[in-house]
Amino acid sequence: MAAWGERLAGVRGVLLDISGVLYDGGEGGGAAIAGSVEAVARLKRSRLKVRFCTNESQKSRADLVGLLRRLGFDVSEGEVTAPAPAACLILKQRGLRPHLLVHDGVRSEFDQIDTSNPNCVVIADAGEGFSYQNMNKAFQVLMELENPVLFSLGKGRYYKETSGLMLDVGPYMKALEYACGIEAEVVGKPSPEFFKSALQEMGVEAHEAIMIGDDIVGDVGGAQRYGMRALQVRTGKFREKTRLPKFS
Amino acid sequence: MAAWGERLAGVRGVLLDISGVLYDGGEGGGAAIAGSVEAVARLKRSRLKVRFCTNESQKSRADLVGLLRRLGFDVSEGEVTAPAPAACLILKQRGLRPHLLVHDGVRSEFDQIDTSNPNCVVIADAGEGFSYQNMNKAFQVLMELENPVLFSLGKGRYYKETSGLMLDVGPYMKALEYACGIEAEVVGKPSPEFFKSALQEMGVEAHEAIMIGDDIVGDVGGAQRYGMRALQVRTGKFREKTRLPKFS
Repeated sequence: MAAWGERLAGVRGVLLDISGVLYDGGEGGGAAIAGSVEAVARLKRSRLKVRFCTNESQKSRADLVGLLRRLGFDVSEGEVTAPAPAACLILKQRGLRPHLLVHDGVRSEFDQIDTSNPNCVVIADAGEGFSYQNMNKAFQVLMELENPVLFSLGKGRYYKETSGLMLDVGPYMKALEYACGIEAEVVGKPSPEFFKSALQEMGVEAHEAIMIGDDIVGDVGGAQRYGMRALQVRTGKFREKTRLPKFS
Repeated sequence: MAAWGERLAGVRGVLLDISGVLYDGGEGGGAAIAGSVEAVARLKRSRLKVRFCTNESQKSRADLVGLLRRLGFDVSEGEVTAPAPAACLILKQRGLRPHLLVHDGVRSEFDQIDTSNPNCVVIADAGEGFSYQNMNKAFQVLMELENPVLFSLGKGRYYKETSGLMLDVGPYMKALEYACGIEAEVVGKPSPEFFKSALQEMGVEAHEAIMIGDDIVGDVGGAQRYGMRALQVRTGKFREKTRLPKFS
């Protein structure tokens, strides 16, 4: 195994995943993972550039940052790359009006988006919002469209809360893909466009950056495919043995 | 186009799908499709053997037959091949104890099955039962197992009720497959074992049988792959253009 110094040679920027790396969500907002508050503080004192790159789609960036600050993290809204704002940019650029199947906590991110007479569907980690009725409505909207367009804010399989593993948006994306015979456009990790925008905000090239996350597909695989280095933590959803889905 | 006589040469048995072919479900049980009551009666007066081969998994066979009889159909329980009884046979043969994610209407079919300390999951068309909480519970049961086994009663994408298109069990099967990185065992059409048992009950060989259904994958594709002939009706979920899922 190469020494750490060698493995990290030339690294100028660090992208940090949030859920499962900095904290585990759950009752009362969740809990910081041991050592993570100090690790972020140390990184920020170092010569490295730091950015937070999350697929969190239940909360607005403002709420997420508020929660992290209450847990003791040094983080501001401008340092966070998140899928909902990225999706809003795409919707505006392409003149799309979404039907939203999202958590109430993130709905405010879409305040400036026209949702009348929808011509696409956006799904995010809706949690309890993934009722049969809501899924069926999203399905019916897609089936009515000549060219159904489905955006999924991330495609994570599950995440860890303090109470246990929880289904993420990915399984519901797969459900709608199969029901409608379409392929979703993923906004968030592991999409290359998402890493690109995070790196641009940080002013660092892919080969100079390392992604730190708990998801072997979304964080590690996605970053490596984009030419970055990556490091998987053993917190959050990390498991010794991971069954990878066949068609990820 | 070959004449009908030629296409049907040697046919001795007819397998009839139920939902979308004989009736559309919905408010108050649903409505018979025009002409279908008389068509079944004519088939039964003919020299052909007739069997009903359904993926219906919201209702027990007894309830389904009761509904069909109220709509005017000549049908008895012994003439119906349905996935829940087929699943019970498999569970008993393999000594499996299921966690059930099924509609209350079909739960009675599993009365004789031990569901304590589950070592597999069975999902069926649960309708509103496909809540986030119920899906997450099924997911957690699977993730706790060393070798997760998931049975899906059919894998239909959607069906038609009088009020519109409704998500079937297939999308939820895909969701759990993706979440857990596993492949489900399908009990029902288009599984070859299911067609085999229907044909055995009827006493007819595959090449002597024709399947009549509204589902191009479950009914038509499945039957043809099993060496039967098949005919797609233009009722039920039939649409002029069908987008086939990539990984069906």
